[in-house]
Amino acid sequence: MGRITVRRRITRITVGSPPSHREDVLAAEEPLEIRVGGSALAITMRTPGHDFELAAGFLVSEGVISRSEHFGAARYCAGATTDGENTYNVVDVTLGAGVAAPSPSLERNFYTTSSCGLCGKASIEAVRTHSAYPVRDDRLRISAETLVGFPDRLRSGQSVFDKTGGLHAAALFDGATGEMLVLREDVGRHNAVDKVIGWAVTNDLLPLRGTVLMVSGRASFELAQKASMAGIPLLAAVSAPSSLAVELASEIGMTVVGFLRGSSMVVYSFDERVTAGAPVEPGTTDPELHEARGAAQAGKVPTL
Amino acid sequence: MGRITVRRRITRITVGSPPSHREDVLAAEEPLEIRVGGSALAITMRTPGHDFELAAGFLVSEGVISRSEHFGAARYCAGATTDGENTYNVVDVTLGAGVAAPSPSLERNFYTTSSCGLCGKASIEAVRTHSAYPVRDDRLRISAETLVGFPDRLRSGQSVFDKTGGLHAAALFDGATGEMLVLREDVGRHNAVDKVIGWAVTNDLLPLRGTVLMVSGRASFELAQKASMAGIPLLAAVSAPSSLAVELASEIGMTVVGFLRGSSMVVYSFDERVTAGAPVEPGTTDPELHEARGAAQAGKVPTL
Repeated sequence: MGRITVRRRITRITVGSPPSHREDVLAAEEPLEIRVGGSALAITMRTPGHDFELAAGFLVSEGVISRSEHFGAARYCAGATTDGENTYNVVDVTLGAGVAAPSPSLERNFYTTSSCGLCGKASIEAVRTHSAYPVRDDRLRISAETLVGFPDRLRSGQSVFDKTGGLHAAALFDGATGEMLVLREDVGRHNAVDKVIGWAVTNDLLPLRGTVLMVSGRASFELAQKASMAGIPLLAAVSAPSSLAVELASEIGMTVVGFLRGSSMVVYSFDERVTAGAPVEPGTTDPELHEARGAAQAGKVPTL
Repeated sequence: MGRITVRRRITRITVGSPPSHREDVLAAEEPLEIRVGGSALAITMRTPGHDFELAAGFLVSEGVISRSEHFGAARYCAGATTDGENTYNVVDVTLGAGVAAPSPSLERNFYTTSSCGLCGKASIEAVRTHSAYPVRDDRLRISAETLVGFPDRLRSGQSVFDKTGGLHAAALFDGATGEMLVLREDVGRHNAVDKVIGWAVTNDLLPLRGTVLMVSGRASFELAQKASMAGIPLLAAVSAPSSLAVELASEIGMTVVGFLRGSSMVVYSFDERVTAGAPVEPGTTDPELHEARGAAQAGKVPTL
């Protein structure tokens, strides 16, 4: 336990000042597998702590239990990893006498997993899908000055947010020119990202080399995962990333930028892609890709 | 289509002023069922628009496709309702030649549904679970003055947010006394709510009559659903609710308050529970429930 926060070494960049390095604290994100009577029911990405309550509340939300006696007992499963360690990421609930076990159709939010080692590296393995497009070798270089202009352009592109105040947004930027290629809004941030990636794949622009994916709000593991599947080398967020988003990014070679506000940002991984100087000159990106993007955009309205 | 926003009649309350009524615009939230080759793969709650891109991006994220030719074709399914209407909430994707269909283990985020009518009332039926605890007759009355104090107390109770800036919070308040009963933080807002409800059910406090559930950020359908399963009559959010959250609340008798900031708020349903005057006197709540809560809290630390 005690993993509510995770410490990491980060790079803080403010336009016009030299970068500074220090330790920072991230909100921990780890998978929790909820089992009922030994059978896996769901995996949710959560902040460790109050896990039995989380399991109980999940079962209330799903209509499985509605009183305390329905929730017989809960325990962390030992032996969830191959070396028998207790990861505190698998909870098994024993229902009270006479309470019907949840039906298999409840198996939603169920990330593909047959192994049970849900900790550290193993936890990422359990929930991640593997990308056809590695991002490690992507030669994207983008200036801090260009990056700090993205949040305003994201915000000004949000036509529905203006009316409702209720939508997340995701936008894809060309890292070489700083041009916004597409913007999508949705009540679900993961949907906004899926729509951006869907726009790209249907226009045959994958892998999205040399691009930046910018999201409103926070950057979770799920978003980092989606970016990786599309070959996006830099994920930028207005707010904080989770620990597991940064852990995945560090492993696969993706740059994660958080707290991109005003004239500054925090870089959590592969900070060499963010240059402190002036904007990088166009032409350092793949010219063929650039042309394909132009063609794709010609027939498109890039906003919702 | 054209359902990116939904108009609703709302009540705007500012402490010290008479309530005003007007039409407001909400971000639309409707379920999208993604089928591949006629088989249901996933349902996601999304804002309508760019649905084929959403389906394509989802399939990229899941590792099913990685090039445009993998995504053969997509169409909206007609005949998804019993009267044969096309709801534009079911998309069927035909994969390109030679692309392997997704494995059944991908069926995550799959809300229980065998019917296919995913529109309006039917859409709620398809994704909702039914509560053992009706909230319609809950006699909660709370003053606007008490409500406007909740966001600051939510914020000041967020110990981990202070360190990381990266956590959502959910807290339960006693509507009669204004007392904060429990607060939980998590990278996922739905987890924070599950932890609050799990705390309540394991202390045998369900149904949570006379309480207010306050969440950081937005109020989605999923959160309204969770509140309803616990018998909570009032859901309050710092930001906007989605259309489907308000639709569900209107149907079951729950009050939804959004944009609870400064000295004002917007009430989207059952505004009679929010009184413009001074705080309601204690004693109007169920005394037995009140006592049980006190006992439950005595042995608990209410924050993370």
